[in-house]
Amino acid sequence: MTGLDDIAGVGVDRRGGFSRHGFTRVDAELREWFEGEARRRGLGVEADRNGNIWAWWGEPGDGAVVTGSHLDSVPGGGAFDGPLGVVAALQAVDLLRDKGFMPRTPLALVVFVEEEGGRFGSACLGSRLMTGAIDADRARALTDPDGTTLADAVRSAGLDPARLGRDDAALRRIGVFVELHVEQGRGLVDLGAPVGLASSILAHGRWRFRFTGEGNHAGATLMGDRRDPVVAAAATVLAARRAATGGARATVGRILPTPGGTNVIASSVDLWLDARADGTPRTREVVADVTAAAQAAAADEGCSLQVTEESYGDTVVFDRVLADDLNATLGDVPVLATGAGHDAGVLAAHRPTAMLFVRNPTGVSHAPEEHAEPADCAEGAAALARVLEHLAR
Amino acid sequence: MTGLDDIAGVGVDRRGGFSRHGFTRVDAELREWFEGEARRRGLGVEADRNGNIWAWWGEPGDGAVVTGSHLDSVPGGGAFDGPLGVVAALQAVDLLRDKGFMPRTPLALVVFVEEEGGRFGSACLGSRLMTGAIDADRARALTDPDGTTLADAVRSAGLDPARLGRDDAALRRIGVFVELHVEQGRGLVDLGAPVGLASSILAHGRWRFRFTGEGNHAGATLMGDRRDPVVAAAATVLAARRAATGGARATVGRILPTPGGTNVIASSVDLWLDARADGTPRTREVVADVTAAAQAAAADEGCSLQVTEESYGDTVVFDRVLADDLNATLGDVPVLATGAGHDAGVLAAHRPTAMLFVRNPTGVSHAPEEHAEPADCAEGAAALARVLEHLAR
Repeated sequence: MTGLDDIAGVGVDRRGGFSRHGFTRVDAELREWFEGEARRRGLGVEADRNGNIWAWWGEPGDGAVVTGSHLDSVPGGGAFDGPLGVVAALQAVDLLRDKGFMPRTPLALVVFVEEEGGRFGSACLGSRLMTGAIDADRARALTDPDGTTLADAVRSAGLDPARLGRDDAALRRIGVFVELHVEQGRGLVDLGAPVGLASSILAHGRWRFRFTGEGNHAGATLMGDRRDPVVAAAATVLAARRAATGGARATVGRILPTPGGTNVIASSVDLWLDARADGTPRTREVVADVTAAAQAAAADEGCSLQVTEESYGDTVVFDRVLADDLNATLGDVPVLATGAGHDAGVLAAHRPTAMLFVRNPTGVSHAPEEHAEPADCAEGAAALARVLEHLAR
Repeated sequence: MTGLDDIAGVGVDRRGGFSRHGFTRVDAELREWFEGEARRRGLGVEADRNGNIWAWWGEPGDGAVVTGSHLDSVPGGGAFDGPLGVVAALQAVDLLRDKGFMPRTPLALVVFVEEEGGRFGSACLGSRLMTGAIDADRARALTDPDGTTLADAVRSAGLDPARLGRDDAALRRIGVFVELHVEQGRGLVDLGAPVGLASSILAHGRWRFRFTGEGNHAGATLMGDRRDPVVAAAATVLAARRAATGGARATVGRILPTPGGTNVIASSVDLWLDARADGTPRTREVVADVTAAAQAAAADEGCSLQVTEESYGDTVVFDRVLADDLNATLGDVPVLATGAGHDAGVLAAHRPTAMLFVRNPTGVSHAPEEHAEPADCAEGAAALARVLEHLAR
């Protein structure tokens, strides 16, 4: 797909896929690309004070029809998660221009910053800052793996960290928000449909488990004398797998022993639990089960445990009136629930919001193998154009 | 202790302790310090072709009395493991000079490079290259976590990588080798003795377990559809703990999921097993037990497993005649076995070799809490001086 090809060389991870994180050099390159594409189409470009980029078809104004997604990725992510929604938005503008459409309400494209939380550990940072879903002071103090604070990173990117936070003026600009995204599952491929609409997003959050034991020598320390946090962390990974029953999901994808030497019993381990389920009570139950197992394992090993909730969002149900309206416009496409979080999910608490999904032949996402066929991407862009035309007529 | 204070600001790890690895800027700074100290004492300094540094009291020659240790550390290591033996060697020279001693045989101080294997994963690199215990081609191809090969690192440090490898001329120079080291256990503190001698080192090795599964989305992927290598790796950590019975040791201190995102099911995990036991059969048995458990866990999770032996050394028994001789010189000090590997253990296959241990009040090593009291360090240096005087008389 043309737009994706343009950025195929940006943020390539030598381990595979892309690592594109907010407020980095790679991020600046991606923004520059988007701004160039927008300007080439005569769209007026502006950044808001949280680092999200807006491109306006016509005069900016309140109550606009807004579409877009994000350009950042998870570490080693795929090419489609995020960028497909941005490229489709640009293509939808082209399709509407080609047919001579002129929006009657303001129409904007938006690129949200750091949606994956791949750098600062906190997902949907741009939209959560804008809506006030994350406290600005808490956000400014977030650190990346190198110890750089968000405040410093934002400053390096040319923004004023003091101006981060709830942005009612930006929020007022959004009358309705539609995000197009590659599907992160096999719903559409199993149904044989290229495009669908989202119904809901699972409740989900991230918890950091810090086990602290006693660093020591891997050869000279008797097994009975050990307080090894890696052992407690390993038991917790298995507990997470056991706890995720009945449609819930629990994942440990990141685990960091300190100091991390082969011949060193670690002094501490940080492990991140990603847990999701249908509703807050069930999600909390999964996290409580994992926490209880982690506490028992830590106690067995003479380690201490600290559990920190890094982010949490309840189940999102997208606006049903809007979904029904768009489904009529698109001619009865499948409507799917998803386990993946999105900026659209954050905005859904404030504005009528919808999502379009594009078929993913394997369902794989957050990995280099993530894919969507060019024909399906084109169908997605055409569907998005129909939706924007319908909403901005 | 004076010499340790001199280098207390070099290679400080912000997570605690020191990270001093071979062929780095930090390593160059430590070498420069040692060379300055040696030259200040009128010792002639030379580097061998594997990057080990030699400082000669008088003319270099074959069959010398040699003492020394290493200046590198594990990641986040303590101040004593390695540097104490180097500082004590310098102090022993001072003590012998002060009493007017002149060695009748050549006497040298040596600093071995990359003893911990903290950068290239292969312990005792300097002594194993010198003795041919590691093949030079294999060594040159070793990579650090950034993907830099040993060949490139050696070149950056101003050495010729083509000249790495077995160095019979250097080996001939060693008539007898004595290494002083902080004890990495509580043998001496429990016996109330400041200084002891080593009897043996456990057989030990390092194995890398690579689990490969399928990277995917942590929220959108059903639990039953997962091939999560973190789960298989966690089961392997617990298997290692179970396998290390009857004096054997098994440790996982380093575990690296790829790509390592919180909301990403990892596509692969590397995990390093450090296993040690009394003799090769028992060590192999421990590794076989862990491997069998890892294979079963990988199969359960639909993952593949590749196990690579990164290093192995059989039990070392230090020269008993030499140990008895030194024990008579020192007046009946404790003689202790250890689970920790050392350059002295590598040299023991080629030359009469001994080790002196200095009391460690907690037994903790490979951690910032590693310690030896100044009075005990001074006792150690004095004991080393007596030993060198005895051997070079």
